[in-house]
Amino acid sequence: MGERPMVGVDLGGTSLIVAVVGPEGEVLGSAKRKTRADLGAEQVIRRIASTIAEALDDANLSAEKVGGVGVGVPGPLDPHSGIVRCCPNLGPSWNNLPVAQILGDLVGLKVAIENDVNAGAVGEFTYGAGRGVHDMVAIFVGTGVGGGLVLDGKLRSGARNSAGEVGHMIVLADGPMCGCGQRGHLEALASRSAIDRDIRAAIRGGRSSVVTKDVDPSSDKPITSSVIEAAYDAGDSVVVEAVSRAQYYLALLVASCVNLLDPEVVVVGGGLVQRMGERYVQPVAELARQHYINQVEVEAIRVLPAALGDYSGAIGAAVLARHCWT
Amino acid sequence: MGERPMVGVDLGGTSLIVAVVGPEGEVLGSAKRKTRADLGAEQVIRRIASTIAEALDDANLSAEKVGGVGVGVPGPLDPHSGIVRCCPNLGPSWNNLPVAQILGDLVGLKVAIENDVNAGAVGEFTYGAGRGVHDMVAIFVGTGVGGGLVLDGKLRSGARNSAGEVGHMIVLADGPMCGCGQRGHLEALASRSAIDRDIRAAIRGGRSSVVTKDVDPSSDKPITSSVIEAAYDAGDSVVVEAVSRAQYYLALLVASCVNLLDPEVVVVGGGLVQRMGERYVQPVAELARQHYINQVEVEAIRVLPAALGDYSGAIGAAVLARHCWT
Repeated sequence: MGERPMVGVDLGGTSLIVAVVGPEGEVLGSAKRKTRADLGAEQVIRRIASTIAEALDDANLSAEKVGGVGVGVPGPLDPHSGIVRCCPNLGPSWNNLPVAQILGDLVGLKVAIENDVNAGAVGEFTYGAGRGVHDMVAIFVGTGVGGGLVLDGKLRSGARNSAGEVGHMIVLADGPMCGCGQRGHLEALASRSAIDRDIRAAIRGGRSSVVTKDVDPSSDKPITSSVIEAAYDAGDSVVVEAVSRAQYYLALLVASCVNLLDPEVVVVGGGLVQRMGERYVQPVAELARQHYINQVEVEAIRVLPAALGDYSGAIGAAVLARHCWT
Repeated sequence: MGERPMVGVDLGGTSLIVAVVGPEGEVLGSAKRKTRADLGAEQVIRRIASTIAEALDDANLSAEKVGGVGVGVPGPLDPHSGIVRCCPNLGPSWNNLPVAQILGDLVGLKVAIENDVNAGAVGEFTYGAGRGVHDMVAIFVGTGVGGGLVLDGKLRSGARNSAGEVGHMIVLADGPMCGCGQRGHLEALASRSAIDRDIRAAIRGGRSSVVTKDVDPSSDKPITSSVIEAAYDAGDSVVVEAVSRAQYYLALLVASCVNLLDPEVVVVGGGLVQRMGERYVQPVAELARQHYINQVEVEAIRVLPAALGDYSGAIGAAVLARHCWT
């Protein structure tokens, strides 16, 4: 069974990615489509099933050749029962839904579910930037900031299956309000949404920025990673400032994690970081290092960009499914 | 061998405590004296040896009846080779010293060394406030702030044996300067030294405080935990304010640790906390809880005062020594 390919699904708020993953982590086939969360859980699960069929087709494999399916879900869940507790980004139809069972019945395969960010951490640990190490902290920066921990080679789930919530670590007491209703959390300082908020505030304050060519700052439309990257590369002072602030707070978070856990690798991924790569991560690593309390063998601690791009979640979900059944 | 009593030593900057610990964690005998770091490492190690003899005497045991010795040392070290790297609080004569071997030769017993705060965490985990759980974060507040992690029942040492440095997690970016030369670390906000600094600053600023009856605020003499406690109980506004601020930042640290690790228990100990007990820890627990991102089963996460008082380090060192040889 360990030798058979596994299917990994990364269920995101906007898109869903499926990868058929071989025993060495190779992507044998894949498929991607919009999640269409507005259709409700039942329809979205059908969309997952047909995207799995498409990915198997792409891999030239029939379902019988596959060992099982792993799904990374964006919300609290119980991996043992396969029940999703809720998915704030997908809507209330997901509340207390036995997703593993429903999808399993549709595709005729065993299905395991895990938190999407934990799946991403496991993907990077097994086949990405954390390959070959024992201990890794993963930080994914997007609309929010999520993370996952692999310690002594094992995903750390925590007492309530909610370990790895790096976005809600406090780095600036009394800082800006976070989506969770409390202040000073990393997510309110270093997410793409935080960068977006700061750029808009500067423009409202009368500063000019090239982003206004692409985005109406009075609209709700988010400033995308590609717009931010282009403005950064053009040296737009508003954007450079907002990105640099986000990098600064992210560096403080990295330092907090290193001083607490002393891991071998901190992997930083997610939309904007993935786009900008080393340009984003290098200054974060340098700033963080200044705060490491143990300055001995400091080069043993590496801060690296994620290596699997859009596929860390799907590949990690496949790895977790394999762990479940072998 | 697991059945034989073990000797635990807590080597502090000012005092050294030795406990002879039975197989159920019971203290069969103990002894305590001043460290006298000014005498240099060689003399201090002799003092440890004679304090061990005194504790064995107190327990009515001869050295042959004992399984070994564990020593908690305040500084970076290599537990495998038994070599202390350095002890900033004890002086340069400790640099790269094979303490386990030197002490072992003196007492005729096997000696293991471990970081003193890690030893304290293991003591609380095994026989104190963390008894019976799998995962625990320990935070000890004193002149500085140290900590230790027990995850899945095992002390987490980290890639460079420096995990658990909670005092150098950042909770207030650009906050006050820490002893390590960086800003915003918890130690600079919630240690007894931070409380001391804030009380003096208020007095220098013209506010009156009852502590001036006991301490000359222009002297170098630290404001002790007992003076702080008495002033707090008397409702002294300067002291209440300084203590409350320290509790606030400590709560943010607790929340950061809970959101990252999702442990079952956070144990808070050290001089002032030990003295004030629940009065100190209860407000910290309540504040921290507001920042937990997972508000489900929130009562499953307990924040508790340390239970072994002065003995957590010595008892933990004995437990670690037992783990080494059984």
